[in-house]
Amino acid sequence: MRQVAVIGIGKTAFGAFADRDLRSLAVEAGEKCLADGNVKVSQVDEFFLGNFAGPSFVGQNHLAPYIAGAMGMTGIPCTRYEAACASSGAAFYHAVASVAAGLNEIVLVTGVEKMTSQTTPKVTEILAGAGDTCGEGRAGATFPALFAMIARRHMYEYGTTREQLAAVAVKNHENGAKNPQAHMRKIITLEQALKGKPIADPLTVYDCSLISDGAAAVLLCPLERAHEFTNKPVKVLGIAQTSEQVALDQKADITTLTAVAAAAQKAYKMAGLTASDIQFAELHDCFTIAEIIATEDLGFVKKGEGGPYAASGKTRLDGERPINTSGGLKSKGHPVGATGTGQICDVVQQIRGEAGERQLTRNKIGLAENLGGSGATAVVTVLGAV
Amino acid sequence: MRQVAVIGIGKTAFGAFADRDLRSLAVEAGEKCLADGNVKVSQVDEFFLGNFAGPSFVGQNHLAPYIAGAMGMTGIPCTRYEAACASSGAAFYHAVASVAAGLNEIVLVTGVEKMTSQTTPKVTEILAGAGDTCGEGRAGATFPALFAMIARRHMYEYGTTREQLAAVAVKNHENGAKNPQAHMRKIITLEQALKGKPIADPLTVYDCSLISDGAAAVLLCPLERAHEFTNKPVKVLGIAQTSEQVALDQKADITTLTAVAAAAQKAYKMAGLTASDIQFAELHDCFTIAEIIATEDLGFVKKGEGGPYAASGKTRLDGERPINTSGGLKSKGHPVGATGTGQICDVVQQIRGEAGERQLTRNKIGLAENLGGSGATAVVTVLGAV
Repeated sequence: MRQVAVIGIGKTAFGAFADRDLRSLAVEAGEKCLADGNVKVSQVDEFFLGNFAGPSFVGQNHLAPYIAGAMGMTGIPCTRYEAACASSGAAFYHAVASVAAGLNEIVLVTGVEKMTSQTTPKVTEILAGAGDTCGEGRAGATFPALFAMIARRHMYEYGTTREQLAAVAVKNHENGAKNPQAHMRKIITLEQALKGKPIADPLTVYDCSLISDGAAAVLLCPLERAHEFTNKPVKVLGIAQTSEQVALDQKADITTLTAVAAAAQKAYKMAGLTASDIQFAELHDCFTIAEIIATEDLGFVKKGEGGPYAASGKTRLDGERPINTSGGLKSKGHPVGATGTGQICDVVQQIRGEAGERQLTRNKIGLAENLGGSGATAVVTVLGAV
Repeated sequence: MRQVAVIGIGKTAFGAFADRDLRSLAVEAGEKCLADGNVKVSQVDEFFLGNFAGPSFVGQNHLAPYIAGAMGMTGIPCTRYEAACASSGAAFYHAVASVAAGLNEIVLVTGVEKMTSQTTPKVTEILAGAGDTCGEGRAGATFPALFAMIARRHMYEYGTTREQLAAVAVKNHENGAKNPQAHMRKIITLEQALKGKPIADPLTVYDCSLISDGAAAVLLCPLERAHEFTNKPVKVLGIAQTSEQVALDQKADITTLTAVAAAAQKAYKMAGLTASDIQFAELHDCFTIAEIIATEDLGFVKKGEGGPYAASGKTRLDGERPINTSGGLKSKGHPVGATGTGQICDVVQQIRGEAGERQLTRNKIGLAENLGGSGATAVVTVLGAV
């Protein structure tokens, strides 16, 4: 297998954009990405689209050739990848594999979602489709409810506190406030987070990620060819996608994201690294508890120590291993299908030294963790400076 | 690249099954397929799911791990592929590529759709999502309307007649009547087809494929390992997926399926064959005109001669190149996401000599053509006896 490089990134801002449709967001991200990578539309061998629920949110399906066609890309395979909130993570995984295996030379991976044209109850219903609608959904469990059960159990097993959950929110809002492309650039206090409107106990509104519109694109080629296009390539050191059961009641232990742990082990092995080598990470904080559990399942800390770790300051911008310097799904926003590629863009930005006010100095090896549903899909990627 | 073999196939009947949900159909096809290929769940390296609009039809999304989990498959990449009516064709294309490239050893590809729980107007609206909803959809064009425009133009350019369209319907119903897994096992006369209820002039109800439930699965491994699992492997000789613009008004010539023509040329080149070597084919007759145009774009006849060819009898079971011996989408049924893998199963069945009453004697090289929307996606596969 060949080594693979990210040679271009392109993102729209994440937010609520009443005047933008899904396709225009995806086209903007894709065109920025091609420009960033100095690649022409005619040079792209295949188009990988990550999108969770465009047909449900905006009524348009068959999105891959629809978006590619608007960019002038025809005559190549154009396919939409769906794996719930890990849709563009899955698209990215398969795009990397195709270049590594020699199936393609240059590929464009775009993630997109347009959510804010629907009401919040309707969005919540569409998102519930990522869980088991025959069981969880029929019982009335929304995604906040599912993650509230996970949080409650983690509190029971490990003594995790609401203050520790809130610490994740405070940190991510602090980071997002410094990110010009973030949806909610608002600093919050621990007290505010704790006193937030209850959504599904113990989660308040500040424990929940945002409903956003946005798109993010990544351009890949074999590492050996990267310098034809850019003087700032970033290398894919390791990557894995894996799965587990969708329904919480089918899982052996809801305080562990089994698929994340398995994907991380595979990605570390491929990279020849261990968790301790990861200098910073973008984690899938769809809810604050998800960031805490991910730090455990990625091996950053031992099982049960994610709560104290979140509250310790070690994951802040000036900490030993900064997490979600972008603001995370919590503050940057969570346009579901764009989140996976969005994380890749954010990690690449740090490695390139282009993160502005949020720039880290220990920025050579970063990780992205993209989660689908309540953990049935996970994609873990380790990126490194060339 | 390694050569790839189909080592197992499994299908549900296609039809309207009020008592079956989407997952149970997919699980049935997948389990039959694994049994047919003598492969255990634990031996599958990756699960490729083709599904067009499960979330819109039945409310369940994140379908790949949802179905895989119900089969006991966890810990592997499980991803849904969407490319409109070519969704499982696209899943199959990527699955073949992954085995050819050495990314996987054994993979399961399942296509599924559950459509009949919605009313026909609602199904029509969901299907319209495969076209350009901002243009065609907003103007009120359903898929029958789009293909009616294509048919009308083909009539104008080449003198194609309603009788020639009807000949496709008559033949496919005749074949489907002999297929125990077909949705509508009903022989029709030319007169019946011509006098069918008008849907979108010049198309009558007999020019339109069916709204169906169903699933079809295919198991792949490297050709060199096929005999570990089966004594009747079938070889993937050539395959290609490609794309063009979604909206009819963006196409240079609506009487040509550009993506089909391009995919066919690539697939023939990979196989080292020409159109004249294809002994039989399963074509995407979502509408009768689509089968006629496909015979032209695949190079079976010259441009404009598809109509007379359809009426000549040469594409019947006893003709020189039988087309849609399964009954096609017209009579076998068109559970959208299952159609691509369904065609592969049908071609494999003929090559293996398992097609019963419909069995061909010239059955060594068969082709499947799977179309997305009004032609924005095309997957063409050439399969051959080992």
